[in-house]
Amino acid sequence: MNTNRLEAFSDGVIAIIITIMVLEIKVPHGETLDALIPLIPVLLSYVLSFIYVGIYWNNHHHFMHMVHNVNGRILWANLHLLFWLSLIPFATGWMGENHIGAVPVALYGLILFMCSVAYAILVSAVLRLQGQDPKLAAAVGRDYKGKISTILYLVAIPLAFVNQWISIALYVTVAIIWFLPDRRIEKVLVD
Amino acid sequence: MNTNRLEAFSDGVIAIIITIMVLEIKVPHGETLDALIPLIPVLLSYVLSFIYVGIYWNNHHHFMHMVHNVNGRILWANLHLLFWLSLIPFATGWMGENHIGAVPVALYGLILFMCSVAYAILVSAVLRLQGQDPKLAAAVGRDYKGKISTILYLVAIPLAFVNQWISIALYVTVAIIWFLPDRRIEKVLVD
Amino acid sequence: MNTNRLEAFSDGVIAIIITIMVLEIKVPHGETLDALIPLIPVLLSYVLSFIYVGIYWNNHHHFMHMVHNVNGRILWANLHLLFWLSLIPFATGWMGENHIGAVPVALYGLILFMCSVAYAILVSAVLRLQGQDPKLAAAVGRDYKGKISTILYLVAIPLAFVNQWISIALYVTVAIIWFLPDRRIEKVLVD
Amino acid sequence: MNTNRLEAFSDGVIAIIITIMVLEIKVPHGETLDALIPLIPVLLSYVLSFIYVGIYWNNHHHFMHMVHNVNGRILWANLHLLFWLSLIPFATGWMGENHIGAVPVALYGLILFMCSVAYAILVSAVLRLQGQDPKLAAAVGRDYKGKISTILYLVAIPLAFVNQWISIALYVTVAIIWFLPDRRIEKVLVD
Repeated sequence: MNTNRLEAFSDGVIAIIITIMVLEIKVPHGETLDALIPLIPVLLSYVLSFIYVGIYWNNHHHFMHMVHNVNGRILWANLHLLFWLSLIPFATGWMGENHIGAVPVALYGLILFMCSVAYAILVSAVLRLQGQDPKLAAAVGRDYKGKISTILYLVAIPLAFVNQWISIALYVTVAIIWFLPDRRIEKVLVD
Repeated sequence: MNTNRLEAFSDGVIAIIITIMVLEIKVPHGETLDALIPLIPVLLSYVLSFIYVGIYWNNHHHFMHMVHNVNGRILWANLHLLFWLSLIPFATGWMGENHIGAVPVALYGLILFMCSVAYAILVSAVLRLQGQDPKLAAAVGRDYKGKISTILYLVAIPLAFVNQWISIALYVTVAIIWFLPDRRIEKVLVD
Repeated sequence: MNTNRLEAFSDGVIAIIITIMVLEIKVPHGETLDALIPLIPVLLSYVLSFIYVGIYWNNHHHFMHMVHNVNGRILWANLHLLFWLSLIPFATGWMGENHIGAVPVALYGLILFMCSVAYAILVSAVLRLQGQDPKLAAAVGRDYKGKISTILYLVAIPLAFVNQWISIALYVTVAIIWFLPDRRIEKVLVD
Repeated sequence: MNTNRLEAFSDGVIAIIITIMVLEIKVPHGETLDALIPLIPVLLSYVLSFIYVGIYWNNHHHFMHMVHNVNGRILWANLHLLFWLSLIPFATGWMGENHIGAVPVALYGLILFMCSVAYAILVSAVLRLQGQDPKLAAAVGRDYKGKISTILYLVAIPLAFVNQWISIALYVTVAIIWFLPDRRIEKVLVD
């Protein structure tokens, strides 16, 4: 059983997730520039989430490129990841509509944390099936990036109740860490 | 006429169904944790439906893998299945917004029942075209799982009026039965 | 330039059109069976439109199967068809929410008429590029079905102002005519 | 790393963008023809945006056809383009709901401008990886069309505050310029 349809389905779901977030940017009733001001936090939340979903699509794209076979465990690990990703639009909308309030910022971090856990489960499901593949093992490596991100989310969640902008700064930091696609994998593929 | 475009179209529709359900989780106006409490039944309904739609995609994926040709009958049987699946977000939203009330729970069961009937029609349309294929016949087998699910839905619908949590328990039971992809098919493919 | 991406994009748009119509079936606030009664015309409109969009996907699927190359004219003829198809959810919602009123029924017919014109333009754009292909010419033939449908829509639009149920009956008639995929094409492909 | 999944994901996102715009055409409550009159600017905005998104899909389709490999830079340049395209439904809705007011028309132009900048960045990211390809270089050429469009948007944005219909006329002009797919590329591909 190959990965084509898994990739196509994941692409479809991720494409919808990244696009329906824009539906949260409600068309304002006034037609002046002032009418756009309340939308600024909504737009900033959208930009952050767009980048996050883009990062997941990017990493998923790179990672699945090295997966040759799919079993039931991998299918479900992938659906589990899509489930948590599908909650990003909700958390984004809640954060944006409440002017980046403390609880919404903490929830946003919780969902990012669950996404990173789900991604790690997917990777380990693939390694379990295909772990003898030295190329894959080398590419995944020690996964410093993944571990650092997970720790930063865990730190950011409680810190949102101290000052939510610290948490936002941490989410932006993680996004910057991941911004470039995983060089390890790209390097292995080129070698 | 091959199955590629049928699979691609089904993947698209199922990806949209599984994702638009999240639009029913309306962003609350308050920014406290309390504001999330009314969303708990909505979220639980979403989780259940996400798993159900995931199961259908999974089984569809496995089953279509063994289908080599498509005729008009199969195209329409597939659209018929997609029609009933497309009503799951509505039933999920109604159930979630009414705190898992009796009538919504019964309707939810009715739509799951119709999905299972539509799936059986799709399988029989394929068998009619390709019934001579011993691999497929072996994989479909006696379809105990399918028959048990259909019966459990039929039992769950009236029981919702006694106590809706019995019906929910039955839906969860069916989900657990199907959770793992169809081992029969996977076994045949590997052999 | 081959047809793969044109088909994939069309599948995507048609999959979204067929699925977002379900968003018009708004979750009712009550939790009794009575709460579902106002939704009956909405549901019936949805069923009719689901079948219509399904027919277009079906015919598009069959027809594009015989197209080998795509030029700018065909790309735009295809987008033009998708434009009119994309208005079906609006017309469906308006018809359903107004208890199948006369003006909405006429508008619904107008949009179906424009879809059939757009489909004819797409077919002629393909014939212009690939008209020397005897298989395609034989499959398209005299296109009785297409011509009859277009005439029936034209008749149904003014009749909606006499009695909208006559128009609905005509739309159902056209749907039945098209229900089975185009045997002419299927026959040519099999030969 | 090939372009298949990049194209599939872009097709998905563009298909969703082009289709969710129709959700802005809210179903009116009345059932008379009068009820449709307030929708005329909404519909006209939709037509313009549908053509614009269609043009981008068309050009993306043609351009990606000549791209053989994808790196991280191209993936992100593509996501950046999709980001600005995803704001078109918002700008369209705002413009339509406010009877083509001055500020919404200027914002619409700003987003079209950003889309054209993002497209230019994508093209230059591809040229950077694959610039030695004489076919591609010839096809991209001096990109008069792209440069003229970008200038026309820049002119149209301030002019919206003089008279918004001048800006609309400029947007329509750019759409006409791009309406036909890029003959340069098509010519090179055929040669």
